[in-house]
Amino acid sequence: MTRSVVLLSGGLDSCVAASWAAQRDELWLLHADYGQRTAGRERRAFDAIAAALGVPPQRRMQVEVPVLRQVGGSSLTDASLPVEQGEPDPARIPGTYVPFRNTHLLAAAVSWAEVVVARRIILGCMEQDSSGYPDCRADYLEAFNHVVERGTRPGSGIQVEAPLMELDKEGVVRMGLELGAPLQHTWSCYTGERLACGRCESCRLRLRGFAAAGAADPIPYAT
Amino acid sequence: MTRSVVLLSGGLDSCVAASWAAQRDELWLLHADYGQRTAGRERRAFDAIAAALGVPPQRRMQVEVPVLRQVGGSSLTDASLPVEQGEPDPARIPGTYVPFRNTHLLAAAVSWAEVVVARRIILGCMEQDSSGYPDCRADYLEAFNHVVERGTRPGSGIQVEAPLMELDKEGVVRMGLELGAPLQHTWSCYTGERLACGRCESCRLRLRGFAAAGAADPIPYAT
Repeated sequence: MTRSVVLLSGGLDSCVAASWAAQRDELWLLHADYGQRTAGRERRAFDAIAAALGVPPQRRMQVEVPVLRQVGGSSLTDASLPVEQGEPDPARIPGTYVPFRNTHLLAAAVSWAEVVVARRIILGCMEQDSSGYPDCRADYLEAFNHVVERGTRPGSGIQVEAPLMELDKEGVVRMGLELGAPLQHTWSCYTGERLACGRCESCRLRLRGFAAAGAADPIPYAT
Repeated sequence: MTRSVVLLSGGLDSCVAASWAAQRDELWLLHADYGQRTAGRERRAFDAIAAALGVPPQRRMQVEVPVLRQVGGSSLTDASLPVEQGEPDPARIPGTYVPFRNTHLLAAAVSWAEVVVARRIILGCMEQDSSGYPDCRADYLEAFNHVVERGTRPGSGIQVEAPLMELDKEGVVRMGLELGAPLQHTWSCYTGERLACGRCESCRLRLRGFAAAGAADPIPYAT
């Protein structure tokens, strides 16, 4: 059975991507703490999703990426910068953008994949509904796969796949419901820990996705 | 004056690369501790080289990359694996290869460069005398630069340069001597902390480079 390292943040998208990969591969789940505001809450979501997917502790890894908090430059990792409220503007890179974050997360996944001989890395990113982050696009991922091909042991055969890339949030919710993904354990809010705020750009994207899919979001909201 | 983030391990190559960049750019020096055997010794070399190059503390950053020790798979980061002695075999990837290491280090440099608006990243790697590490080659770096172009803010203009890429160790020593690089503060040994062992592949490459350049290596050796 092919091994897949899944980057599982604990959010909606990565939960659906993991559930998709679980149909085919043996899952190795990687979670990163990079000093994001809701790191503790995301970690709990990771553990709950991993358990729901039946992935044993020896195939889960929690890593820290302290450099992203050190460099700051993002409202997600620098508590002195406010998190924007309201609808994201697709033409603009928002303040929640963490500089070059996905390269750090993917590098961790590739290093682990080389050691445990996993062939695939699963990333739950989407081009359309990713708040305009440059490192969530298909052409970024295509370039990254060239780096993996050239920068790992010859024959490693490691490839990053992004099964949600072409979907919007509605499509992700629909796929998650079809797969029976444990959406009740996910967490997407950038600011809340007990109740999702319902107002940050991540909450709004998520709520809009559930509404468009005609489904109720199973997590608790403050508003 | 253009800002350059230099990845400065404290070894010979990165010291020469930093000295080269210092002729042209304002240096921002980045040092990574990824659980390598001689991390403490390398950190001291970093501080001494930074001081010799006149780079103030606010333009130096020390980061930790704990995931590389967590995943292991290398004799540099897993103390239970022996460090090979003797001449490196260019046709084989040695046990000191740290899986995908340079992508982690470069990602840290790119994130920092985005925040401090540096345009260049300087990496002291060389294709020829790099013990066969796949992530020290020109085609790897070319692919990585595509990732930087696509994965950072539009217009970031960040580019990775490797001024030693085409040189061998003799050439690096010669360049260092011409530039007056502070080679006496560098550290290359994979095993020793007070005296360089003179036997590991890194010591052998270095000693051969000084010998070929007809120069004395200014650091102390055990043998």
